[in-house]
Amino acid sequence: MAHRTRALLDGIFTSEAMQDVFCDRGRLQGMLDFEAALARAQTRTGLFSASIAEAIGAQCRAELFDLNALSRGAALSGNVAIPLVRALTELVAARDPVAARSVHFGATSQDAIDTGLVLQLRSAVELLESDLARLAGALAVLADEHRKTPLLGRTWLQPAPPVTFGLKAAGWLSAVERHRARLRELAPRVFVVQFGGAVGTLASLGADGLAVAGELARDLQLGMPDLPWHTQRDRVAEVGTVLALLTGTLGKIGRDLSLLSQAEVGEVFEPSAPGRGSSSTMPHKQNPIAAAALLAVATRVPALCATLLSAMPQEHERGLGGWQAEWAVLPEICLLTSGALAHAVRAVVGLTVDAERMQRNLDGTRGVVMAEPVALSLSRRMDRSVAHELVELACRDALEHGRALSEVLAENEQVTSRLSAEELEQVCDPSGYLGLAEAWVSRVLAAHGWSR
Amino acid sequence: MAHRTRALLDGIFTSEAMQDVFCDRGRLQGMLDFEAALARAQTRTGLFSASIAEAIGAQCRAELFDLNALSRGAALSGNVAIPLVRALTELVAARDPVAARSVHFGATSQDAIDTGLVLQLRSAVELLESDLARLAGALAVLADEHRKTPLLGRTWLQPAPPVTFGLKAAGWLSAVERHRARLRELAPRVFVVQFGGAVGTLASLGADGLAVAGELARDLQLGMPDLPWHTQRDRVAEVGTVLALLTGTLGKIGRDLSLLSQAEVGEVFEPSAPGRGSSSTMPHKQNPIAAAALLAVATRVPALCATLLSAMPQEHERGLGGWQAEWAVLPEICLLTSGALAHAVRAVVGLTVDAERMQRNLDGTRGVVMAEPVALSLSRRMDRSVAHELVELACRDALEHGRALSEVLAENEQVTSRLSAEELEQVCDPSGYLGLAEAWVSRVLAAHGWSR
Amino acid sequence: MAHRTRALLDGIFTSEAMQDVFCDRGRLQGMLDFEAALARAQTRTGLFSASIAEAIGAQCRAELFDLNALSRGAALSGNVAIPLVRALTELVAARDPVAARSVHFGATSQDAIDTGLVLQLRSAVELLESDLARLAGALAVLADEHRKTPLLGRTWLQPAPPVTFGLKAAGWLSAVERHRARLRELAPRVFVVQFGGAVGTLASLGADGLAVAGELARDLQLGMPDLPWHTQRDRVAEVGTVLALLTGTLGKIGRDLSLLSQAEVGEVFEPSAPGRGSSSTMPHKQNPIAAAALLAVATRVPALCATLLSAMPQEHERGLGGWQAEWAVLPEICLLTSGALAHAVRAVVGLTVDAERMQRNLDGTRGVVMAEPVALSLSRRMDRSVAHELVELACRDALEHGRALSEVLAENEQVTSRLSAEELEQVCDPSGYLGLAEAWVSRVLAAHGWSR
Amino acid sequence: MAHRTRALLDGIFTSEAMQDVFCDRGRLQGMLDFEAALARAQTRTGLFSASIAEAIGAQCRAELFDLNALSRGAALSGNVAIPLVRALTELVAARDPVAARSVHFGATSQDAIDTGLVLQLRSAVELLESDLARLAGALAVLADEHRKTPLLGRTWLQPAPPVTFGLKAAGWLSAVERHRARLRELAPRVFVVQFGGAVGTLASLGADGLAVAGELARDLQLGMPDLPWHTQRDRVAEVGTVLALLTGTLGKIGRDLSLLSQAEVGEVFEPSAPGRGSSSTMPHKQNPIAAAALLAVATRVPALCATLLSAMPQEHERGLGGWQAEWAVLPEICLLTSGALAHAVRAVVGLTVDAERMQRNLDGTRGVVMAEPVALSLSRRMDRSVAHELVELACRDALEHGRALSEVLAENEQVTSRLSAEELEQVCDPSGYLGLAEAWVSRVLAAHGWSR
Repeated sequence: MAHRTRALLDGIFTSEAMQDVFCDRGRLQGMLDFEAALARAQTRTGLFSASIAEAIGAQCRAELFDLNALSRGAALSGNVAIPLVRALTELVAARDPVAARSVHFGATSQDAIDTGLVLQLRSAVELLESDLARLAGALAVLADEHRKTPLLGRTWLQPAPPVTFGLKAAGWLSAVERHRARLRELAPRVFVVQFGGAVGTLASLGADGLAVAGELARDLQLGMPDLPWHTQRDRVAEVGTVLALLTGTLGKIGRDLSLLSQAEVGEVFEPSAPGRGSSSTMPHKQNPIAAAALLAVATRVPALCATLLSAMPQEHERGLGGWQAEWAVLPEICLLTSGALAHAVRAVVGLTVDAERMQRNLDGTRGVVMAEPVALSLSRRMDRSVAHELVELACRDALEHGRALSEVLAENEQVTSRLSAEELEQVCDPSGYLGLAEAWVSRVLAAHGWSR
Repeated sequence: MAHRTRALLDGIFTSEAMQDVFCDRGRLQGMLDFEAALARAQTRTGLFSASIAEAIGAQCRAELFDLNALSRGAALSGNVAIPLVRALTELVAARDPVAARSVHFGATSQDAIDTGLVLQLRSAVELLESDLARLAGALAVLADEHRKTPLLGRTWLQPAPPVTFGLKAAGWLSAVERHRARLRELAPRVFVVQFGGAVGTLASLGADGLAVAGELARDLQLGMPDLPWHTQRDRVAEVGTVLALLTGTLGKIGRDLSLLSQAEVGEVFEPSAPGRGSSSTMPHKQNPIAAAALLAVATRVPALCATLLSAMPQEHERGLGGWQAEWAVLPEICLLTSGALAHAVRAVVGLTVDAERMQRNLDGTRGVVMAEPVALSLSRRMDRSVAHELVELACRDALEHGRALSEVLAENEQVTSRLSAEELEQVCDPSGYLGLAEAWVSRVLAAHGWSR
Repeated sequence: MAHRTRALLDGIFTSEAMQDVFCDRGRLQGMLDFEAALARAQTRTGLFSASIAEAIGAQCRAELFDLNALSRGAALSGNVAIPLVRALTELVAARDPVAARSVHFGATSQDAIDTGLVLQLRSAVELLESDLARLAGALAVLADEHRKTPLLGRTWLQPAPPVTFGLKAAGWLSAVERHRARLRELAPRVFVVQFGGAVGTLASLGADGLAVAGELARDLQLGMPDLPWHTQRDRVAEVGTVLALLTGTLGKIGRDLSLLSQAEVGEVFEPSAPGRGSSSTMPHKQNPIAAAALLAVATRVPALCATLLSAMPQEHERGLGGWQAEWAVLPEICLLTSGALAHAVRAVVGLTVDAERMQRNLDGTRGVVMAEPVALSLSRRMDRSVAHELVELACRDALEHGRALSEVLAENEQVTSRLSAEELEQVCDPSGYLGLAEAWVSRVLAAHGWSR
Repeated sequence: MAHRTRALLDGIFTSEAMQDVFCDRGRLQGMLDFEAALARAQTRTGLFSASIAEAIGAQCRAELFDLNALSRGAALSGNVAIPLVRALTELVAARDPVAARSVHFGATSQDAIDTGLVLQLRSAVELLESDLARLAGALAVLADEHRKTPLLGRTWLQPAPPVTFGLKAAGWLSAVERHRARLRELAPRVFVVQFGGAVGTLASLGADGLAVAGELARDLQLGMPDLPWHTQRDRVAEVGTVLALLTGTLGKIGRDLSLLSQAEVGEVFEPSAPGRGSSSTMPHKQNPIAAAALLAVATRVPALCATLLSAMPQEHERGLGGWQAEWAVLPEICLLTSGALAHAVRAVVGLTVDAERMQRNLDGTRGVVMAEPVALSLSRRMDRSVAHELVELACRDALEHGRALSEVLAENEQVTSRLSAEELEQVCDPSGYLGLAEAWVSRVLAAHGWSR
């Protein structure tokens, strides 16, 4: 197995901390934590003596197991819990043959695999929440600092009236805050124990089932679900959907950064570092690699999320095909999300904002983007559609001949008969046309506790 | 347009009520409700006289507009709000030329389209919530009535220890209740107004922007967002994800029904009605058409949800491509969800449960599914893996020769030396091996207020 | 049904010709063409007299049927062929009760639905092939005309050495030609009859099955498959994949057009027309609506294609859920593809290419994009990594201070000691650095018969 | 990196041979093969002396490189070719500083990455073709052996007239043969070199570009494309679509096997082996793990394919986000496909077919599935819809009371007045109602050269 790693791209697309959660060892440890907690729960409910739980717990350390052997065993039996339980039983038996009889008692493979996954997911969500808090903080700083920094608004990739860079950042921030709320809402639904035995009835535990399940949940600090959820996969899929929404927003940030970084726009730059974003052939290049990673992740996660959703109609008490489809997909979503978040934090924290260039680009439109307020002003004094058309023609003229809109309009007596030269100049000036830009920024910062 | 309808399959996959929400008229009306409310809000904030809002509002009725003309206009301008606003302006102008100047004042196309969509979504979610309540109620009845009805558990599509049919229904119910909770949590995030003007600053409204936005939201009984969200699409995509989770559960119900309805299993039947599920060639057929529809919808919605997620990285202040990709997709998700829900309600409410056949199928396994408790009993008195293997061989013997497991085991002295004939008989009897089945049912019913 | 149309957006996303193929009438007519041809085939193989086929064929006209009634019937029976066959039988019976007994004889619902679909797909592919030929022709003209028109190359959205606009067009063309080849390869696999009766054995036709199937295929000018393919859906899904590949390329064209149309780049413009791409608020706007539509379609089709693929594992002789999931999806893919193609043809045919602006943008980089050849030249005379680094620093200097790269380098004696002033000037000049741009164009045109 | 493997599930979902192709080493070796061949091509076209190519080629062995360092380098520069080229240059320089200057000459990172991928894909397709040939052979044997083995046909998961098991296998085989054809058609489009330098013009090679490209292609035994295809990704995505179609068919086989293996059906069994498909709790279980893996893969690959399609609209000369999204996805598709194929081969080769149980299940329907021919016989002598209804009622009666259809019908004088007792018995006998089942099998075997 060792010589067949597929981790060369991990550095680009995942964080190290998330790799630790979802590597093979992390997967094993999740299941082993379940087995150890199960033994303790059964001890506490009086099924076993405490020494049994200790004997079992002592062997529940991932590093004691042979990954290659487990992988081969999984291929044979169709899931990884079977060889793991066998290997664990052998390890325990070598020291305490009686305790070995109590390993995995009452549980089914899926109990160990699903609860192990839930434990991994809890760690994953903690990591993501912490990164999201950092991202939100960095965006709040950006929004605050640039609340008055004007730049060209752009719609359909075409110039539009101005906004401020702080408003852009506030838009990103507001979405990030909603994702934080979603993760909080998710927790009580998802971080619950899976423990039902072969078919969900815990029949092999007789009357003790509920008590053991309760102790198990308490031991692992997980919630206790309504009932086992072996083939009710909405919990698991929901994690995928919430992370997919989050990576969609990160992709939006990446899209904006990539467009603003174009040399022809040149308004922001990802942080530079020696070698960062370099090219194998072009010494002048500094590629926006965070933007690329954000967009790549936003391209990949939606489909992975769709897989989780497609896998939901699972059969009877435990499924065939759908459950197995989940195994690698949810970890992959978490890994990609963590990688994208790391890129986003790095890019936002170290972002260079070229306010001067923003102003220059705005000036470069020569007032054409002020067509809206001009038409508005005129339409108060003449027919609206006539005004709209008049301004449309003036804009075309201005664009074609590289003149300022105010200049072109000053030659039109339909305009001059209605607006004084001063009024015209003023209505064509973008700097006074920022509307609520700053008010929205304040509103967002206040709503989420980021006001200073 | 009329002669090119594509509604032949609507009856199978959508509900009529949801068609009313998302048909062309519904779409227009959503936008027109925005325009009318906007005029009223501007009146209330003192921008216009009340008569203007009345003049505009009077024309904001979808039936006044020519769908064909609007469709052609949309093709030309790239979105449907532009020809709609033009047509509305003309309608208003014919009666009140002054009022006409105030139509759509301060708003951009996307404000009308997005707020219109939010209004449609609110109606859609109301419909779905009401159907979900009915489904939950019907499932609660099923769970309660069959809390003790034993049937074969099945894992990996293979026989397993018994469960009760009530437990199955409780599992479905528990998932449905989580979807209801998700819809409730969704509401405050999603049911908010979209109003930002060209680039989100509401600059053309000057100092009045925030007040108008607030009045507009109040008028439409929508929330007021942090700031306009033209290219922050997590709200819209979230609706898709929550409905996709829901249709996944409906697909799970469909999967179970389809499998339980197989003639070889024959444990449940969809309600029959003359002509329902008939075949064009085979008079004996009664096809499980609800199950088919549930599975079809569960196959389609995940990908539609992925489209919404893929469309999230939208450009700058208003996007190009991504936003347009949403237009038909979210309505389609709602339509399909409503259709699936209707099928689910019909199937569950009218479900025939053949408890006798369930018992017969359970008996037919001749105790082999009791391998687990037998092995467990033995492993208390001998080595666990030896016990597991001994029982495995006995099961194979029983299956091959059509004998009862207890019979085969009774011939094995390793067994008889450890278990009395009576113990053996008892441990091989599925009817006593239902564990927490009933307890879980009670727990689910109590948790969600369905206990009687 | 009529008052619940959902066609408002059709004008943006589909062509009228494709709507005719896939509207409700088109769907019915496909199935009716199957029924008429089946009767003729059975006549020809001697099962019926010719008058029967005539009596049936006379009623096989979609306009004779009540769409609303069929939609309701479909909802009841779960598919649309059942009420259609019933209604057709009644129509025939009204004139010829004996002939009525022979309607649909030997066929199953899916035979009519699938063969009807194949007939629709054949019409669809014809339309697409004709549009693709037009698109290829227009791209060939563009490639040829602009084979020498230099513009900035851009990688990772950053400036790179120059290319020609003809090379860009040739790249689009080459992909389009591959799609044409794929459609040609697809035809013999996909355009085959579906005729197997209830379970694929045509048992009700006894010894005549094969002959009838052969005649039926011949009558419809379809191929004869190996065997019926009711649950082998690779044919149907393959159409989806080939169109998804095509829309991916159209999305690529749309992406490039949208980026080149940015005001800050301004190198190409979509054709303008009164009202085309206008804004409801901003008179200066001319939105790139073709690009938006191309990107929207490229965002939607991949997921629809995934649905077809997900639906493939269908059950036994005829499936439950998967087949039903296909019904609306494949038509939708065709409709969207046709719409995107129409936009692409329109945009490419009427594209304005601003060669002057291209040159100006190129000049604006002040030679920085020539870092690659400069480093190359130097590395022939000094250590490569030293050269790379030296040029990287010079580029940064040039960019920061708005100077020409040649100017900066001319101050560095490591450079001047190795390159003469003339050599330096030359190696920094983009116009001579077009490599194979023109050769590739010629190669593409020649390979696909577009050379003049 | 080593301690963070994620390969625990590889044994279940991929083949070892495919892991060798797509592991980190395989990825590096693909790029290094490109670099070595490029040096040779440049030697052959006279750019360098032969010793340079030798000096470079000698270091182009993946095992010489430090994976961890490359992974870190990739994270910094955004792609893996940059650190690889740097490391290769250092390795060459240590022995031959002059040769080191010629490493990667004229190429861009993407040339190495894409050509390396194409080389991996070629190996992958070879593996898949060989497995497909084995699968086809095994299916042909199954089809031939069971051409006359009757079993219940099943539509909508409900009983239908009989088919033969050979017909089922022939249906699977026919689809597999189409996939083989698709892979053959794919080859000339996909197995082409990528070589265009920074922007596709090969400008740094001056007049030699075309010659070097030609030699490079020849050296690697790849085709020469029309022109470089850095942002024309249809080739790459097409591989994904063809494999997704293939895994769809494998999923169909898995679906059928899983359903036929249900204890209640019990007509086929996956091969058993000690430990294969065992359960951690239920000694009697033998889970259909091949079916589970086939279905899991068929659930996962469609979405991965959609990712490739979604990633197609890449920017300008080289993309940002889309290309990066491909990197891990296409390998994953190949890995999963290989795993599914291995499971399919194993399951089909070792499949146990219980012809006796098939007959018993058929008999168990008590003639009800013969409703179609009975209705047909009657409808020749009475009104068709009356006949259909009469038989429908008789079936219901038979099913409800567990009687044979012929028995029920024999009590109906509408029937007995039209069919003699003998005729009735005959028309109710499934064994004579197999139609073309055997003929289709022969046809499929003959069409693909599998007839004996």
